[in-house]
Amino acid sequence: MLTDLEIAQAAKMAPVAEIAKELGIDDDSLELYGKYKAKVALDSFGNKNGKLILVTAINPTPAGEGKSTTTIGLGDALHRLGKKTVIALREPSFGPVLGVKGGAAGGGYAQVVPMEDINLHFTGDFHAIEAANNCVAAVIDNHMFHGNELDIDPTRITWHRVIDMNDRALRNCVVGLGGHTNGVPREDHFDIVVASEIMAILCLAKDMDDLRARLDRTVVAYNRDRMPVTIKDLKITGALMMILKDALKPNLVQTLEHTPTFIHGGPFANIAHGCNSVIATKKALSYGDYVVTEAGFGADLGAEKFLNIKCRQAGLKPNAVVIVATIRALKMHGGVKKEDLGLENVEALKLGFGNLEKHIENIKKFGLPYVVAINRFTSDTEAELKALEDWSIANGHPVSLSEVWAKGGEGAIDLAKKVIDQIENGKNEFKFIYDEEDTIKTKIVKICTEIYGASNVEFTQEAKNQIARLEKLGFAKQLVCMAKTQYSLTDNPKLLGRPEDFTVTIRGVTPSIGAGFIVALSGDIMRMPGLPKEPAAERMDIVNDKIVGLF
Amino acid sequence: MLTDLEIAQAAKMAPVAEIAKELGIDDDSLELYGKYKAKVALDSFGNKNGKLILVTAINPTPAGEGKSTTTIGLGDALHRLGKKTVIALREPSFGPVLGVKGGAAGGGYAQVVPMEDINLHFTGDFHAIEAANNCVAAVIDNHMFHGNELDIDPTRITWHRVIDMNDRALRNCVVGLGGHTNGVPREDHFDIVVASEIMAILCLAKDMDDLRARLDRTVVAYNRDRMPVTIKDLKITGALMMILKDALKPNLVQTLEHTPTFIHGGPFANIAHGCNSVIATKKALSYGDYVVTEAGFGADLGAEKFLNIKCRQAGLKPNAVVIVATIRALKMHGGVKKEDLGLENVEALKLGFGNLEKHIENIKKFGLPYVVAINRFTSDTEAELKALEDWSIANGHPVSLSEVWAKGGEGAIDLAKKVIDQIENGKNEFKFIYDEEDTIKTKIVKICTEIYGASNVEFTQEAKNQIARLEKLGFAKQLVCMAKTQYSLTDNPKLLGRPEDFTVTIRGVTPSIGAGFIVALSGDIMRMPGLPKEPAAERMDIVNDKIVGLF
Repeated sequence: MLTDLEIAQAAKMAPVAEIAKELGIDDDSLELYGKYKAKVALDSFGNKNGKLILVTAINPTPAGEGKSTTTIGLGDALHRLGKKTVIALREPSFGPVLGVKGGAAGGGYAQVVPMEDINLHFTGDFHAIEAANNCVAAVIDNHMFHGNELDIDPTRITWHRVIDMNDRALRNCVVGLGGHTNGVPREDHFDIVVASEIMAILCLAKDMDDLRARLDRTVVAYNRDRMPVTIKDLKITGALMMILKDALKPNLVQTLEHTPTFIHGGPFANIAHGCNSVIATKKALSYGDYVVTEAGFGADLGAEKFLNIKCRQAGLKPNAVVIVATIRALKMHGGVKKEDLGLENVEALKLGFGNLEKHIENIKKFGLPYVVAINRFTSDTEAELKALEDWSIANGHPVSLSEVWAKGGEGAIDLAKKVIDQIENGKNEFKFIYDEEDTIKTKIVKICTEIYGASNVEFTQEAKNQIARLEKLGFAKQLVCMAKTQYSLTDNPKLLGRPEDFTVTIRGVTPSIGAGFIVALSGDIMRMPGLPKEPAAERMDIVNDKIVGLF
Repeated sequence: MLTDLEIAQAAKMAPVAEIAKELGIDDDSLELYGKYKAKVALDSFGNKNGKLILVTAINPTPAGEGKSTTTIGLGDALHRLGKKTVIALREPSFGPVLGVKGGAAGGGYAQVVPMEDINLHFTGDFHAIEAANNCVAAVIDNHMFHGNELDIDPTRITWHRVIDMNDRALRNCVVGLGGHTNGVPREDHFDIVVASEIMAILCLAKDMDDLRARLDRTVVAYNRDRMPVTIKDLKITGALMMILKDALKPNLVQTLEHTPTFIHGGPFANIAHGCNSVIATKKALSYGDYVVTEAGFGADLGAEKFLNIKCRQAGLKPNAVVIVATIRALKMHGGVKKEDLGLENVEALKLGFGNLEKHIENIKKFGLPYVVAINRFTSDTEAELKALEDWSIANGHPVSLSEVWAKGGEGAIDLAKKVIDQIENGKNEFKFIYDEEDTIKTKIVKICTEIYGASNVEFTQEAKNQIARLEKLGFAKQLVCMAKTQYSLTDNPKLLGRPEDFTVTIRGVTPSIGAGFIVALSGDIMRMPGLPKEPAAERMDIVNDKIVGLF
């Protein structure tokens, strides 16, 4: 069997200039990065008013769901049906590629290409974000070194340095050592690039002016009176604009079936909102009749933020949602261990339906039409597939068996037709789960009870104090971005399926004012992954001018 | 008067594909990065056997010399004379751009463009080098975390992390804090990207195979038996090859006068060898009848390393050397303070000739023909210019007044003709200053006495011990890369002109085995600059879609 990388390398790509031309993007608006990648000018728009399809999923398990693969396959299927289709995805983070994961940009015959470039430096966006982020950090430390006019409190610097590497040794460090000429000693932390607030800002910015306004108001530290210090105070918004000007432009590539695909931005789906950029999504909607996009992790995190944060800030209205589930993952939600996933187990599968059911209910709460996509694995049995189909039909859920991994777009023709049907005939009464006017606490409680199904929400004393401070600073109207484990509807990663009668504990809140939200932390959130004992990097190489080992 | 940036922005560039076509580079060998930058395939070569011209200078002073400007102007002049000419330069480091310096890629009417891109992310080479460097660091710490099979001594890790930012707070830090799950605590250091050994390796590698061999043998730490641990031991050479594969390809741009220019690589000229890449230089020689290149700092550092290290490793034979001097800088070497440079002072100027004289003698020791280029400044008086010309003629030095800053290539026609004359009629008996077979100590002594003019060389006890250890480890045949202040021929930055009867003290040696040299340290060498009180970044911005404040 061919690996994803081998399938991608065997692909015959069309020149990206041709892909762009078909969309109606003229040459002058295109900045080529080699023959198969391009940036599209910010002021280039088509005249369509496309339908927006969000692909989300049940809570992820080690069994895999294939959300990106389904997104790509669905896009390819719409494309095959003769619909002008554009896919809008996130850029992968490089650090994890070297760790456990290897490269990924879909899978099997539903991939975006050039897969290697997309997984490596691509068009340099993440490098630019890293540089911008670390420019802020360097200027903070430099400011303290040169007299500290802003009176920055070295123990209240909230800005972390970032690096696009899985590097646990940098999670906690002390910098500024070595005596007077080498800076002011203080505790510091490095996060992975996707956790940078600049990543979230870039992905939510509507245009250059909005990017500037967001950077200006971004809080990076507090002074000794505990008042916020912003990037504007540091006088480097202009420099950051300069560093980020190319990174703000969406990147155009293609799928194996030549469906145009914007891949742009990739904020974490826990401490940030986990969606590709607003600019790319809007551009896609202007060029395509159908736009397929995805949000990170399960629907409790990714879809909730896509809808409550991204759609609200950008004025987007989705037309349909696809909820991806797999037999294997549902069996894990039903209690099966990973090593037993190869065995048929209809009972466990049925026990796992609860997880899917809760996510369906949530999409309904947002007032959106949906289709359940069963992403078929070779190990799925007929009895299992039938059980899921029967349950869906019995409960009135539109459902489709998707085989995009093995068949590409051909494997999602039925799914595409059902999605079109939902867009045209389904009821769409899109609404948010909370109001901007709600207090921070109310927003958090609404998400926890309505979306997660919690019966109770507890705030630690620290969280209460922090919320009070943020309200005093005038940040009460910010949206809320939940940082929660992706594995469970609760804040306990071990509780699979559809837990009931549980409490979510909010341990702290932290402002991302440039992004426009308050991050509410439930549990420890990892902002800097580590490498495993045998990193994927050890398998990677170049043989006969071709990359090997990138999966 | 227009700034460099304004002149660059007003330029009408030719599409880089046209520049490439004129050189005979076919489209398939060209990877476009926008319309005006391109990478050239490693296996693409022309059929020329060009003449190699090295541009070097007297010891730099705050008055400025204009070495890059002269290199570009000379290239433009040769181009104007109808010679097929290629320029080969280093990539600028981004960190200093945000600090004191602002952007620079030549000056006035002798610049390379697109100036902004070249000074910002360009084609991502430095970002790739940063990622490769920091991948090594992450894997070292990860290895220690997961049992430390190689028995790496955490107090003898010689590999530093890097970042392309002037960030003094990262010079000395402690990483791996926060308890067991967050790594092994140890002292660490961040250098600026240009100081990474990977930068030196990339610039000296002849091809992919050589890059691999160099990475394999690179020493990153010592185990508890004090034996070297290499990148090969870490099993990530393949991953680094993958990360660096595009960065190894030279970048093609153009001057304001459309002269083809490779800009590729940029190692420090103190702890590394300070020249653009071997691959770019060789490619340039295959496409041009004349190739103009430069080396960092003054001829004591840059030219010495260009000739003894780069030319030796790459089998290059230079055809002529241009030594750039300015009236202003020679006056500083003659004792004039910066604030008095505007006043005519022929006596001080004459006192400063010694510095130029020593560099001329050194180029003669290498057996190479040369031309002195007087880079004219508007403040130079006729009497001063005449004094320098008279002295040159009286001493038999070919000399030319160069006005490239104000006039572009037109300002160096005479210089170009004199360089051609030296190439065609000058005596060329190129030889190295030391033999590969010399001991490490002998190599160092030869450079200090022959090139710097020292009467004595002292080795501290630590340096002696380190040399003994390196010889025991089998590194005796490595070349020597001197880390010395660039401001003086001595190891004391305050001693200008042509000091005599002085001692150079060698305080330590450190191996760069992948690069193929031992770095000999005389004095403190800054591997991570800091930002000034008001960083240049504060002036930078984007106004009406154009960068401003980048000088």
